Amino acid sequence: MSTVRQKVNSRISLLHSQLCVGLDSDAQKIPGIFQQTGSPVLEFNRSIIRATKNAAVAYKINTAFYEARGIQGLKDMEQTLADIPEACMTIADAKRADIGNTSKKYAEAFFEHWSFDAITVAPYMGFDSLEPFFSFGEKLVFVLCLTSNQGSRDFEEQVLSDGRPLYAAVLEKVNQWNRGGNAGIVVGATKNGQLEALRAAAPDLFFLIPGVGAQGGSLDEAVRFGSDKAQQSAVINVSRSLIFPQGEFDSIDAFEQAVSLEAEKLHQAMKLAMQQSPPDVTAALRSQQTE
Amino acid sequence: MSTVRQKVNSRISLLHSQLCVGLDSDAQKIPGIFQQTGSPVLEFNRSIIRATKNAAVAYKINTAFYEARGIQGLKDMEQTLADIPEACMTIADAKRADIGNTSKKYAEAFFEHWSFDAITVAPYMGFDSLEPFFSFGEKLVFVLCLTSNQGSRDFEEQVLSDGRPLYAAVLEKVNQWNRGGNAGIVVGATKNGQLEALRAAAPDLFFLIPGVGAQGGSLDEAVRFGSDKAQQSAVINVSRSLIFPQGEFDSIDAFEQAVSLEAEKLHQAMKLAMQQSPPDVTAALRSQQTE
Repeated sequence: MSTVRQKVNSRISLLHSQLCVGLDSDAQKIPGIFQQTGSPVLEFNRSIIRATKNAAVAYKINTAFYEARGIQGLKDMEQTLADIPEACMTIADAKRADIGNTSKKYAEAFFEHWSFDAITVAPYMGFDSLEPFFSFGEKLVFVLCLTSNQGSRDFEEQVLSDGRPLYAAVLEKVNQWNRGGNAGIVVGATKNGQLEALRAAAPDLFFLIPGVGAQGGSLDEAVRFGSDKAQQSAVINVSRSLIFPQGEFDSIDAFEQAVSLEAEKLHQAMKLAMQQSPPDVTAALRSQQTE
Repeated sequence: MSTVRQKVNSRISLLHSQLCVGLDSDAQKIPGIFQQTGSPVLEFNRSIIRATKNAAVAYKINTAFYEARGIQGLKDMEQTLADIPEACMTIADAKRADIGNTSKKYAEAFFEHWSFDAITVAPYMGFDSLEPFFSFGEKLVFVLCLTSNQGSRDFEEQVLSDGRPLYAAVLEKVNQWNRGGNAGIVVGATKNGQLEALRAAAPDLFFLIPGVGAQGGSLDEAVRFGSDKAQQSAVINVSRSLIFPQGEFDSIDAFEQAVSLEAEKLHQAMKLAMQQSPPDVTAALRSQQTE
């Protein structure tokens, strides 16, 4: 039983939101007002969390932006994690995976040392490279499936000899590996044509959907096609277009208001999309019983 | 021109060795004698480096084993890097890759912040996820191709509609992306049947070959089939069977002697394998001119 899945699904239903805030906190893009605080990235993150916490169900920490600054970056990550409300899911967007004994160490790093609720992993090396993550039954493990970038054509969309694209083969395997109910996939919001088909093929997986906002995906379609029948089990990540609002800000308060406004807009749009496709209550009840 | 490739190829020819020492320094496996030093992992690594530096051409730091211990682990990684002889290639075995702006941050982390010579990356997300690494022309970028674990059957060995396995499609793409001479692949030593074919298909790529030792691959075949015509452009990684020798050690000196002996055995075995298939001198000269 994935307690993380239960936690985030409760919050999705409570807020009528699927907003995942992507803390891609690029030190070079952080507004000037934070530069005077002594810990620009940390104070920026704290400000984003204050501004979004009433709309968000999850926060996704993109590890690259912290690793790029070495030990100081990881200290910022550690303190940021402590500031994220307990009711929200924390995702390490880390895209890790390696041979078994190594993946075990990555799982320990993110699930035990840093206490993340969830992680993103890369499928290329196959089951034994992912099993050490899946073995944490209470967590959520998101396997890259169909991503929103151009390069998805190079391999993900290559067609196998049985006629399926590679990403469909990944989806099928993740379905098989989802014994503990703690498996999910990453599927880009710019792939709406496929999103609906992927959800139909994987009614029980949790979907992490990036690509809305700066990458151009439709929020409305992401909510309607990405959710399960209970209108749960999907979070939609928004990073750049939310955390780096246009304009100059002469105070942290002013910055926070702009972010808060944008978060509320996203929240309302998600609410609306959820109203347009009301949940299947029977499915919702069934899902609550089995989780 | 990849200056890293030049550096490591010079050392391969100088030592007649292709030994890459894998610093998979699992804190839980480090012999008791190091526990009293105050910095067990760091002192263990320093001991391994002292014991292997006359035989090694490269050191591979498996980031998972450091990340698992959080900030302290990364401090150990930083100090370990400072102890590796300049003549040896340092590889961040990190298996990273993400959308472009994120991969750019990973490349900054490992190439700029930590100053590694080389990195391993995962191909699933395609070219734009790898391009930020390739853009560091002086470095080496090893793309996962065919790995030594069982899970390689799940996706890597899946056959595409054109009859090729996925890993062969990855190889072909990496060949195309190798404009700066700084591209390589990871191919497991347990895949000797395929190793020869992969080298034939990619005469100009640098090969990183794990899987010798604990994973059971043949050292002799890895050297003979993995090297290019100049008997360069391949390093063979040995981790567990080298850094965790059997037996109890009552001093760091005794431990170091055991590791040193094993490193020299590997070195001699590589020398012998290189003698059995003498280099193509014309190819060697040509490769020196173009690098």
